[in-house]
Amino acid sequence: MLTFYYAPGTCALASHLALEFSGAPYEAKRLDFKQQQQRTPEYLKINPKGRVPALVTERGVLTETPALLQYIAQAFPQAALAPIDDPFLLAKANEFNSYLCSTVHVNHAHKGRGYRWVDPDDGAALDAMKKKVPQTMAESFTLIEEQMFKGPWVLGEKFGTSDMYLYTLSRWLEGDGVDVQRFPRVADHMRRMEAMPQVQKIVALHQA
Amino acid sequence: MLTFYYAPGTCALASHLALEFSGAPYEAKRLDFKQQQQRTPEYLKINPKGRVPALVTERGVLTETPALLQYIAQAFPQAALAPIDDPFLLAKANEFNSYLCSTVHVNHAHKGRGYRWVDPDDGAALDAMKKKVPQTMAESFTLIEEQMFKGPWVLGEKFGTSDMYLYTLSRWLEGDGVDVQRFPRVADHMRRMEAMPQVQKIVALHQA
Repeated sequence: MLTFYYAPGTCALASHLALEFSGAPYEAKRLDFKQQQQRTPEYLKINPKGRVPALVTERGVLTETPALLQYIAQAFPQAALAPIDDPFLLAKANEFNSYLCSTVHVNHAHKGRGYRWVDPDDGAALDAMKKKVPQTMAESFTLIEEQMFKGPWVLGEKFGTSDMYLYTLSRWLEGDGVDVQRFPRVADHMRRMEAMPQVQKIVALHQA
Repeated sequence: MLTFYYAPGTCALASHLALEFSGAPYEAKRLDFKQQQQRTPEYLKINPKGRVPALVTERGVLTETPALLQYIAQAFPQAALAPIDDPFLLAKANEFNSYLCSTVHVNHAHKGRGYRWVDPDDGAALDAMKKKVPQTMAESFTLIEEQMFKGPWVLGEKFGTSDMYLYTLSRWLEGDGVDVQRFPRVADHMRRMEAMPQVQKIVALHQA
């Protein structure tokens, strides 16, 4: 049995969706970030980074969204969540997922977690970071819309983990001051994702 | 034949090392960032992100370090650069590589590329970011030293792409105001990397 740790509003939604679509048996445990449950000694033994997602397997704990997404796809191949038998196409999936992780998520984090990179008491610097988030998020989604998104799914004909990850970060646009309707293909992708019962089920858990 | 685009001082060193250790035939092309060669229309056709590394293969272009590292390991399996036959161990490699990409590299980038996340004319905000880099880099390398690094290599007994990536980012510590000697296992890892002729050859190219 896999145990999956998540918190609402975080990128853990992507891996949670992958688990749900994989058909694997898993237990999902919710952490309350407002109560700092990700900082308890008990959780820090699971993930010393004090972050989500974390996936406890029989062989140990896995963290970092791109690693989890590929692991879930490889461990449950019957669900066909990534092109695991083709190194080039798998690299295209990882290229996309890595861009979301290291550029798009990082852009977004400058709104609410700027204290990671400046003195938390430096209000002017925190404000300067927040101010640019609509621009950096719009630039990233322009690149996704115009260059990276193949259609009808992220990587082309086959639905998979990159779709779950893109959907997770697309949900952040509104709060980041960017109208998703500026990106018609991404907006259409969001609608198709939200029509799926698996997505509705997991999103409801993250919103409850 | 693979064509690899890199620039000195960048994270492209990690993928360059992986290519060298893979035994694959490849041609390396150097871009001069001071002359903005990553922004030419010609290069933007290869990588619309205007960044390195980029690897041109017969089937298309690949970018993003974690994606390239796994691709090179999978495409040239005889070099045994990653645990590609074990989804859990491969996920541990990707977990490590993703942490370097999305957290450690991002910490470092706040020294010289803070303009990505604030108005480039906001000198006070840029200075605020620079000031914290020694702290964030030291925190990341403390986690690597104490929790993530298994020894003798990053993932344990087997040398591979995670070692090349760690070495690449370890080289940034001095310029980021952090003494690598604070992290004895990382410092020893650097010494062992630098004793390898393949590393000496590629580092010389990046320094020339």
